[in-house]
Amino acid sequence: MSILEENINRTELSQIGEFGLIDHLTKNVELKNDSSVKGIGDDCAVLDYSHKQTLVTKDLLIEGVHFDLTYAPLRHLGYKAAVVNFSDVVAMNGHPKQLIVGLGASNRFSVEALEEIYAGIYLACEKYGVDVVGGDTVSSSAGLVISITCIGEAKKADLVFRDTAKKGDLIFVSGNLGAAYMGLLVLEREKQAFKADPNLQPDLSGHDYILSRQLKPEARIDVLDMLKNAGVKPTSMIDLSDGLASDLLHLCEKSKLGCSIYEDKLPIDFTTAAMAQEFNIEPAIAALNGGEDYELLFTVSQKDYEKLKEVKEITVIGHMTEEAAGRNLISQSGSQITLRAQGWDAFLKNDGKL
Amino acid sequence: MSILEENINRTELSQIGEFGLIDHLTKNVELKNDSSVKGIGDDCAVLDYSHKQTLVTKDLLIEGVHFDLTYAPLRHLGYKAAVVNFSDVVAMNGHPKQLIVGLGASNRFSVEALEEIYAGIYLACEKYGVDVVGGDTVSSSAGLVISITCIGEAKKADLVFRDTAKKGDLIFVSGNLGAAYMGLLVLEREKQAFKADPNLQPDLSGHDYILSRQLKPEARIDVLDMLKNAGVKPTSMIDLSDGLASDLLHLCEKSKLGCSIYEDKLPIDFTTAAMAQEFNIEPAIAALNGGEDYELLFTVSQKDYEKLKEVKEITVIGHMTEEAAGRNLISQSGSQITLRAQGWDAFLKNDGKL
Repeated sequence: MSILEENINRTELSQIGEFGLIDHLTKNVELKNDSSVKGIGDDCAVLDYSHKQTLVTKDLLIEGVHFDLTYAPLRHLGYKAAVVNFSDVVAMNGHPKQLIVGLGASNRFSVEALEEIYAGIYLACEKYGVDVVGGDTVSSSAGLVISITCIGEAKKADLVFRDTAKKGDLIFVSGNLGAAYMGLLVLEREKQAFKADPNLQPDLSGHDYILSRQLKPEARIDVLDMLKNAGVKPTSMIDLSDGLASDLLHLCEKSKLGCSIYEDKLPIDFTTAAMAQEFNIEPAIAALNGGEDYELLFTVSQKDYEKLKEVKEITVIGHMTEEAAGRNLISQSGSQITLRAQGWDAFLKNDGKL
Repeated sequence: MSILEENINRTELSQIGEFGLIDHLTKNVELKNDSSVKGIGDDCAVLDYSHKQTLVTKDLLIEGVHFDLTYAPLRHLGYKAAVVNFSDVVAMNGHPKQLIVGLGASNRFSVEALEEIYAGIYLACEKYGVDVVGGDTVSSSAGLVISITCIGEAKKADLVFRDTAKKGDLIFVSGNLGAAYMGLLVLEREKQAFKADPNLQPDLSGHDYILSRQLKPEARIDVLDMLKNAGVKPTSMIDLSDGLASDLLHLCEKSKLGCSIYEDKLPIDFTTAAMAQEFNIEPAIAALNGGEDYELLFTVSQKDYEKLKEVKEITVIGHMTEEAAGRNLISQSGSQITLRAQGWDAFLKNDGKL
């Protein structure tokens, strides 16, 4: 939503009221999944998970902490809010099926602004085959609050947890790392430049890839399919929301193991590396501590290694060790560095940045 | 949380960090329900609803809109946040089984303050047999945000919706109406008095019942059991969160019917009526438009009336009519008044009051 759009067509929330707003935002919803029995319009959504295990995850996103409306377009924000929840279901080796949306917004938002958020949510749901089955839209005295609950399914035998990695398992990541963080830094830089001189046009050209990784991430449901086709079930899995170091430490702690990963194995896109250099950041640091990549981090039994050799989009970066060996990064020079979680920690840093 | 407690024992959120906080707040959780397969600690909760329908509801509560920390003790707030979600599951004729808690809090809250909220949530879960299976605790730049998702179960044949009332069905409510609203008015009055003179002690004596209805509501799961024992399944049902008028209009709209209810049938506790008089409000207006009673409003086929004669705690207040007859209140003097929703509408009133 640009300021321009706001001026052209602005319907006040008070014009249609709470119930009118929910109806308006959800009037075209059609349920597509067999497990979606009853959607919006009653006290609860009704789901049928009689043949599968039910997965439930939720996220609470708060303006000024998790997103900055200065540079996050509302449609992208809706898309991302949905996708990061899909990603949690995918990280269990499950498939997202239903979404419930809670929005808290003050009168500074118009109906059209909330339509934009919903448009992004619907776009993500359309792409991932997910039904919106519930919505709650309330007044917020402060900033925008987005609360998403996602429900998904998995066969019991397919579920992959965090606490089931084994010593000697290989550690893989999908895609590449650090791009979303570099996208954030570019957006922050242009925001600061704009603040200093409001006549300045933001210079985002040439940064499409890292910007899309930050503003419009995807859940790696395609990686689940590739692993399945290869006949491999990961021994443990997590999605990369807080950063590789932090999330790998979760796997280690839950599985009571150590790990060794190798700096020179970390998959980093060349645009990420170039931008990291521009910001005077080691690309490996961006890969380790930059969050919000929403790639999958998973461990695989060594016996399955051959089966994965032909699978694209995944990279082996190390292996799990016994707990006493510690959690280590082996640098390019061969030195061993203890891994520390330096990703997002909401209460230490209040600005949504690393 | 009184200011005093805060001073005696205050642990800053930054001292334990986001992950430490979640661990701290949830370390004693034990799963009790068969349907709770895996709780806190992975990307998703895992549930098994292979023999039942799954019900999902969520609520987003925002400080300054839905609650006022001046008079809502944090423990009560946690209790209420959980119970109002249970109430939505109960309103489908279902039983709540799992809860996922999202908290957004700024640094002005201590660890002890969040413990109080969780203590209230756990108390409610203990009482209603619900497992806490997930939590998300994030930083909020503004006020306290509580986002709750509740999952419940029902046999398919037991589900009761809003859109299935029939012409001629009798309209029942459980318990009594308007008490929660009167409790709110007393709290507001004492808050204003305290603002005017901070040395004044709030005078809440003698108002225990209406205050508990406002601060610590209950979900009427007991009414489900009574109806079941009487061999009666309601034809439609909703819980009273927005007020009788507003919620009955929902049943009418969804079922495409009209209704007639009778002023002299509305069940009103004598303490509610007395307080309404003190505030110069017609008790019937408090009953119609005062929200947050969390009683059940349901319709029953006339042929089942005899079966319900002995059931305590429920009152017949009118009947459903054809849509063209309108939605009406018949006053004590016999005049017919069109029902209007004047309950809570979040975007019209920004203060959480009627």
